[in-house]
Amino acid sequence: MSLNESLEQHKDELLQALERDDRERLDAQLPELRSADIAEILQDLLEGDDELRARALLDSLPLERQASVIGYLHGEEQLVFTSAMRNDKLQAVLEDMGSDERTDLFKVLDEDRREVLLRRMAHREREELMRLASYEEGTAGALMTSDYVAIPMGMTVSRAMMRVRQTAPDAETVYQLYVLDAEGRPAGTMSLRQLMVARPGAKVDELMIRDVIHATVDTPQEEVARLVARYDMLAVPVVDEDRRLVGIVTHDDALDVVEFEATEDIHKGMSIGQLEDGVSRVPLLSLYRKRVTWLVLLVFGNLLSGAGIAHFEDTIAAQVALVFFLPLLIGSGGNAGAQAATLMVRGMATGDVGVRDWGKLLGRELLVAGALGLTMALAVAPIGVMRGGEAVALVVAVSMISIVLFGSLLGMCLPFVLDRFGWDPATASAPLVTTLIDASGVLIYFSFATLILSSG
Amino acid sequence: MSLNESLEQHKDELLQALERDDRERLDAQLPELRSADIAEILQDLLEGDDELRARALLDSLPLERQASVIGYLHGEEQLVFTSAMRNDKLQAVLEDMGSDERTDLFKVLDEDRREVLLRRMAHREREELMRLASYEEGTAGALMTSDYVAIPMGMTVSRAMMRVRQTAPDAETVYQLYVLDAEGRPAGTMSLRQLMVARPGAKVDELMIRDVIHATVDTPQEEVARLVARYDMLAVPVVDEDRRLVGIVTHDDALDVVEFEATEDIHKGMSIGQLEDGVSRVPLLSLYRKRVTWLVLLVFGNLLSGAGIAHFEDTIAAQVALVFFLPLLIGSGGNAGAQAATLMVRGMATGDVGVRDWGKLLGRELLVAGALGLTMALAVAPIGVMRGGEAVALVVAVSMISIVLFGSLLGMCLPFVLDRFGWDPATASAPLVTTLIDASGVLIYFSFATLILSSG
Repeated sequence: MSLNESLEQHKDELLQALERDDRERLDAQLPELRSADIAEILQDLLEGDDELRARALLDSLPLERQASVIGYLHGEEQLVFTSAMRNDKLQAVLEDMGSDERTDLFKVLDEDRREVLLRRMAHREREELMRLASYEEGTAGALMTSDYVAIPMGMTVSRAMMRVRQTAPDAETVYQLYVLDAEGRPAGTMSLRQLMVARPGAKVDELMIRDVIHATVDTPQEEVARLVARYDMLAVPVVDEDRRLVGIVTHDDALDVVEFEATEDIHKGMSIGQLEDGVSRVPLLSLYRKRVTWLVLLVFGNLLSGAGIAHFEDTIAAQVALVFFLPLLIGSGGNAGAQAATLMVRGMATGDVGVRDWGKLLGRELLVAGALGLTMALAVAPIGVMRGGEAVALVVAVSMISIVLFGSLLGMCLPFVLDRFGWDPATASAPLVTTLIDASGVLIYFSFATLILSSG
Repeated sequence: MSLNESLEQHKDELLQALERDDRERLDAQLPELRSADIAEILQDLLEGDDELRARALLDSLPLERQASVIGYLHGEEQLVFTSAMRNDKLQAVLEDMGSDERTDLFKVLDEDRREVLLRRMAHREREELMRLASYEEGTAGALMTSDYVAIPMGMTVSRAMMRVRQTAPDAETVYQLYVLDAEGRPAGTMSLRQLMVARPGAKVDELMIRDVIHATVDTPQEEVARLVARYDMLAVPVVDEDRRLVGIVTHDDALDVVEFEATEDIHKGMSIGQLEDGVSRVPLLSLYRKRVTWLVLLVFGNLLSGAGIAHFEDTIAAQVALVFFLPLLIGSGGNAGAQAATLMVRGMATGDVGVRDWGKLLGRELLVAGALGLTMALAVAPIGVMRGGEAVALVVAVSMISIVLFGSLLGMCLPFVLDRFGWDPATASAPLVTTLIDASGVLIYFSFATLILSSG
């Protein structure tokens, strides 16, 4: 039985027990499920408009478990459950959460609720929560947790070990330790593994790695994730403007960021704006808005192709057979160009391609696109002969090579140009590149047609 | 100074020291750099055809560090360095590597070299290496390391702690421990954190979590990564056919998989085959091959559009102005369809969209695409009036709505259909969807034109 099957089975049994209000079964089933799994069951129930059953399921869990499950839900789903909670229970749930999840939940609550909850908190907790909630979304500050293990400089290994044991129940990770100087700045870092094999009387200062790889609170989250990936880190320490340690971003959050950013890039590559939730859950109006902007802009881009055609109306009227090859030629150029743009955009996003590689890549694209254009011209030339004779075949073949070559170079260069002007290279989406190539393709094709057919 | 700036500065200083053969400087600079950074410097040197300097830099490192740096290089780069190494040095490098990196390096060596090295190894090492090298690329087996901490059932906490300390220098991670039964099957798992706060005399059996989330050696790597992401795991245990623990996949490898799979999906979405390396390094012939297949296939797909046009040649000859709107209409349908396909393919890849959501998503797409088509029809209708009068405007507007609606539904459904027939949904790439919509768009447009203009 695969994991997924066993999970589905657990879910079914749980839902049945819930249906029959079979407490005994529930108590036997629930500890078998991870919080992520229970969260998924709750999401399924909410999607089926079964709010009552979802609430009953959550309520049947111990409070600590409730906090953990809520941490896995999306903002609107969290609101469904918290809006029915009394203030003292919600406060207890918040207290049971890690500081990063607490902050996220706090941010989705409405103004009044936040006020009430803040007033019930101790001064220090309140300050910390408000500080964490103040960082802009998409930065290391918004992603980090303040539950890390800090060790003052000069501490011995044995005392540091005691500190780790004390912090263990609350810290997000106890496996990476941060040695702070008197100002609270990271002076070094060490792993729990290093600490465990060290001589108990040694000072942490002797063991720590002094060159601490870190982010600042306003480092973009994708850069933080890149640090984690590059250096195989368990967590990245985050410092504020005064270089004081204020939090850490852990490997699991970095993984979520990589997945999220990839989705965003894939959507951008097709001219879709950033969705606030999965495609199956995002509100329809929002989905419409995120798709319509570029589509309408590109309508006007496509009018350029129309203008090109209008310019050559006489050529077309004289030889209507030319229209046969129009979608083929502009389509092929668009496909090759979109390939080239996509390779560059993704290469730049992963750090594989830098601006200084431009010259080298241009030479490579010239060779590859030339070969592609030639292959496609050879594929299409016989059909040109069949439909319009040798002269038309020549026009089509020469146009194919030119359009594929031009389209590929345009697709390749556009991301670099956009980047140069401070735009996101991903704006060079397939639809934009295709639209630009369509217009150029019309001009190239009918220019060759006029030139070759009228002289022939 | 940002991390990148400080890294660049380190690199420059290091290269200068290498140039002047300044041992003292080198010894001061090298420990400041992480292995990942040194590997990048080596890559830069190799790209600049400076093999000699690259070798000199690697040789100036302690052996253990050399092993670590080589682990960060790609296969062909590894060969550059290992081909110049004597067998005893290469053997020492292999011994200093983690088992997963050792296996990867071993796999790039040529047959003769492997034979020689295997003969020099102890029986157990040889068996393990050959077993790890035997798993298919892209599976948990090929990704995993065998350097994990195993604890036999019945062991006390204090003895388990000693075991952890002993294994610490070699294990990939000591933070997740696996409790094995007498047959070597995972009976439970526990974190080092749990172990540290437990009563020393307690048995691990009392502490461990019995329901072990695991993969098998042939689980696809993207599923392993999804487990890590879903359950925020440090490592996923991997079992063989007999359910015995044979390795673990750690969080850093899962992160690399997510990044790799995203790149693959992005390329597939633009009909580019899987590249064996970054776009700036992959051989030109390979890049050509990975791009040409679909491009040529789509040439023949595009001939369908041509056939459609040929069928309506009389309509076109009678009103050449219709050609003006052709690229606009088929382009807009293609863009909307590619958006819809991309949203589905990515949703399916991240697990956000399942086959059972199809009906609900179809209804949503119908509404959104209808609204998109209407918006774009309104944008284009005035131009229709200007260029060809009201009848043409009507043809263009009705065609726009129909093509966008049809294209979006086609783009949305195609990934599900492909999945149903056992194909990768990502085969529904933007170029494929666009080509199919081009052909349908031609038919829809000229059908409306014939219908409305001939009756008017």
